[in-house]
Amino acid sequence: MSVSVQENQAKLEAFKAYVRKMKQYEEAISLIYWDMRTGAPKKGIETRSEVVGELSTEVFRMATSEEMGNYLQVLHQPEQLEQMDEISRKMVLECKKEYDRSKKIPADKYQAYVVLTSQSESAWEDAKHTSNWTMFQPYLEKIVAANKEFIELWGYEGNKYNTLLDMYEPGMTVEKLDEVFGALRDKVVPLLQKIQASPNQPNRDFLDQQYEISKQKQFSLSILKQMKYDFDAGRLDETVHPFATALNPGDVRITTRYLPNDITSALFGTIHEGGHALYEQNISKDLVGTNLCTGTSMGIHESQSRFWENVIGRSKQFWNRYYGELQQTFSGQIDDIDVDTFYKAINHIEPSLIRIEADELTYNFHIMIRYELEKALINGTLEVADLPEAWNAKYEEYLGIRPSNDGEGVLQDVHWAGGSFGYFPSYSLGNMYAAQFTNTLRQELPQFESLIESGNLEPIKEWLTEKIYQYGKLQTPNEIVKRVTGEELNPDYLVQYLEDKYKAVYGI
Amino acid sequence: MSVSVQENQAKLEAFKAYVRKMKQYEEAISLIYWDMRTGAPKKGIETRSEVVGELSTEVFRMATSEEMGNYLQVLHQPEQLEQMDEISRKMVLECKKEYDRSKKIPADKYQAYVVLTSQSESAWEDAKHTSNWTMFQPYLEKIVAANKEFIELWGYEGNKYNTLLDMYEPGMTVEKLDEVFGALRDKVVPLLQKIQASPNQPNRDFLDQQYEISKQKQFSLSILKQMKYDFDAGRLDETVHPFATALNPGDVRITTRYLPNDITSALFGTIHEGGHALYEQNISKDLVGTNLCTGTSMGIHESQSRFWENVIGRSKQFWNRYYGELQQTFSGQIDDIDVDTFYKAINHIEPSLIRIEADELTYNFHIMIRYELEKALINGTLEVADLPEAWNAKYEEYLGIRPSNDGEGVLQDVHWAGGSFGYFPSYSLGNMYAAQFTNTLRQELPQFESLIESGNLEPIKEWLTEKIYQYGKLQTPNEIVKRVTGEELNPDYLVQYLEDKYKAVYGI
Repeated sequence: MSVSVQENQAKLEAFKAYVRKMKQYEEAISLIYWDMRTGAPKKGIETRSEVVGELSTEVFRMATSEEMGNYLQVLHQPEQLEQMDEISRKMVLECKKEYDRSKKIPADKYQAYVVLTSQSESAWEDAKHTSNWTMFQPYLEKIVAANKEFIELWGYEGNKYNTLLDMYEPGMTVEKLDEVFGALRDKVVPLLQKIQASPNQPNRDFLDQQYEISKQKQFSLSILKQMKYDFDAGRLDETVHPFATALNPGDVRITTRYLPNDITSALFGTIHEGGHALYEQNISKDLVGTNLCTGTSMGIHESQSRFWENVIGRSKQFWNRYYGELQQTFSGQIDDIDVDTFYKAINHIEPSLIRIEADELTYNFHIMIRYELEKALINGTLEVADLPEAWNAKYEEYLGIRPSNDGEGVLQDVHWAGGSFGYFPSYSLGNMYAAQFTNTLRQELPQFESLIESGNLEPIKEWLTEKIYQYGKLQTPNEIVKRVTGEELNPDYLVQYLEDKYKAVYGI
Repeated sequence: MSVSVQENQAKLEAFKAYVRKMKQYEEAISLIYWDMRTGAPKKGIETRSEVVGELSTEVFRMATSEEMGNYLQVLHQPEQLEQMDEISRKMVLECKKEYDRSKKIPADKYQAYVVLTSQSESAWEDAKHTSNWTMFQPYLEKIVAANKEFIELWGYEGNKYNTLLDMYEPGMTVEKLDEVFGALRDKVVPLLQKIQASPNQPNRDFLDQQYEISKQKQFSLSILKQMKYDFDAGRLDETVHPFATALNPGDVRITTRYLPNDITSALFGTIHEGGHALYEQNISKDLVGTNLCTGTSMGIHESQSRFWENVIGRSKQFWNRYYGELQQTFSGQIDDIDVDTFYKAINHIEPSLIRIEADELTYNFHIMIRYELEKALINGTLEVADLPEAWNAKYEEYLGIRPSNDGEGVLQDVHWAGGSFGYFPSYSLGNMYAAQFTNTLRQELPQFESLIESGNLEPIKEWLTEKIYQYGKLQTPNEIVKRVTGEELNPDYLVQYLEDKYKAVYGI
């Protein structure tokens, strides 16, 4: 090797060690957050928050440091990138993207924004609790203004909102989203009307009874085992708001919430988080310690939680296999409910006000509403002051119902309070990706349904690992979707899935 | 203020912020260790260990950095130290001590030693498991040699072993230890002989039965509440080897181990760790974020765990108050055992081979044996190769029993494998300090016994907080003992305590 090649190689190795160190700090931070949410004693939180602040500041400092700048100046050159293996190249590109984005915001503005969102989340909590929009409005106004300012600094192509979308779903645009959401809405609205008009509404009375929590827990654990969630690389705990967190692929933890009078919340919540966890547990070991060792986007991540929760967990085949075990677990409580009744009950469709409680069909309307409002706020065609009325009008339009107060309306989600604009579309993208992947999966694994029906979920997990999970962030969402399904994101698969499933459930 | 005073004040503030950052890293490290020991999934441990390694390296780097050197050069000057408040002064002195100690060991030697002790602990585990001394001997030889070399680099006053003692018990010396251990041995040996010759040996048969673990847990939790362990500033978990860890005074966690056929292990183990925790939970808030926010020494720490475990938890008054509740908890199991029988059973004295299972009297002999062996190894009057025989001979001499193999002999403790020479004496110092503090406590709180008997432990905790806990590391062990009791460490209080207690228990 020439001296210069050797030097560049050494630079690349130093860069990778630097990124590894950042990942190590992030792992420590993730563990602290997990602990704070699962059982850290409250009197220690104040000091612990300072620890998180210190470590987070250090990660941000590293991502934007002169040292990082020097690495990128050398390594982010066409002739350098060409010579690198794929992992190294994508590591450099990812760091460069983050470096440029961070560097464009002056440090004092960023710091002020962090403080603002923190205060805003606290104000939102009180505002939601008391349904008091005016308490929250001034914070949201500042947050929207800051996001608009940041977009000008970051720059944008096409719609201003694209820059925000790209943070959660790299490559996604308003142009594409308008198209897929439009197509989805056009087909799903008439389907929903037919469902609502159907005389065959599911019997759900039996769901409303006491389900002993220790038994719910036992059943949740057994379903996770069936999904091939690896308990040597994870654990299940309880929290008010369930989540999954990947510390490293060998430690991907999930939480759930057991409600004494609702069996479905913990059951489908656990499967949902388990889907997120399967993704992270099965990322290639080659990516450990790199900035690619995570799901490629929020949308693809959500496709996996929703695939496992809805496509598998709410399927007839799944319950043909596991309903007997559920009956046994809650012996005496659902003995006279047959599997078909149960299946229909857990697939009940009904417009509702609260996003997180919505069924898999109407859920998408909750997202479209938020997407349209965000887009309008960021593009200046809607003022924050007019948001509650706009929200209520959209619910009337899309779902035919109107919130009776802002607590169950515009104040229901924390996302905006935390400054997460551009995040919501991920949820519906997840539904669309999931249906599209499933279509391919059925072709390549024709025994798909009988595998579920026989409780043999391993080949399904293997297929997903081979096609999606192992890559982590090595490929973009669009690259993955095209490679796996042969085409770009196409909402028709979700439409077809919903039509097939719900025409049968509702006999329409 | 003159410019120079202002500059020095700014330097002091920067130094304190720097120390605070180190403490924040240490808090993150402690949480990771807690998690690894309580329930982290095993497949994530390898990567997590690298995270700990990275953060620990950073703390060591900060403690020995040029920046720290610069702070100390300015602040560790007589005229500077004089002007400071007490907390700042002690912070500087503590950092200076650590800085000097670390700087005297060349980095490559220190690194090699870290690797050696890590390999040694692993070899020790196998060696202990198979009672194979020769497997461990070469590691211990290297560790002893390294410690001898470090002592030459660190320097020493009087006996070489003093330098090691000072790491765990600042100010303690061989000269002092020889004196107090000698006095203790001279009085306790005849007492032990009388106890062994007594016809009044406790009935312990009833202890050997199945005690349901959920009930053990319930009782342990209730005793911790009685001790005023603050559950809003801590939590109780299960581990194979119980421990207490202070993340900050608002988060001091303890663990215990429930044995199905032994009620005493979890009970007294929990009280013991609870004693450590009370110390850390009650350190003054003024010390949070400083390097003084921890117990002042291993010996004083152990005095608190042993005070709560033995002086309180194994007292007659304690069980006069709580035995009824224990009987109720294990209803039907110990109904016909009266409190006096129970009290004597949990205070049974008998020479045994295993330190961690020893009673509060013979425990001290286990420590004296290790102390004498360590002292001889470090001073070169005993070779590592001759250690097993020396060990067995000492057990014969002090306790009249001889290990049948090295697994229950010289290989029983991990301390030497990890390079912890000078640590063992802390345990007996704890017993002596505890008895000495108790003597003063009885004078200042004459209703001491009736407080215990009525389950009113709060005033006792308050007294300890006022006299000891709040100070953290602001005072040395010797300063604390002299301030609280009016004299230096005096073994006579432990002798008196043991004689008073065991003459009654054994009717001698």
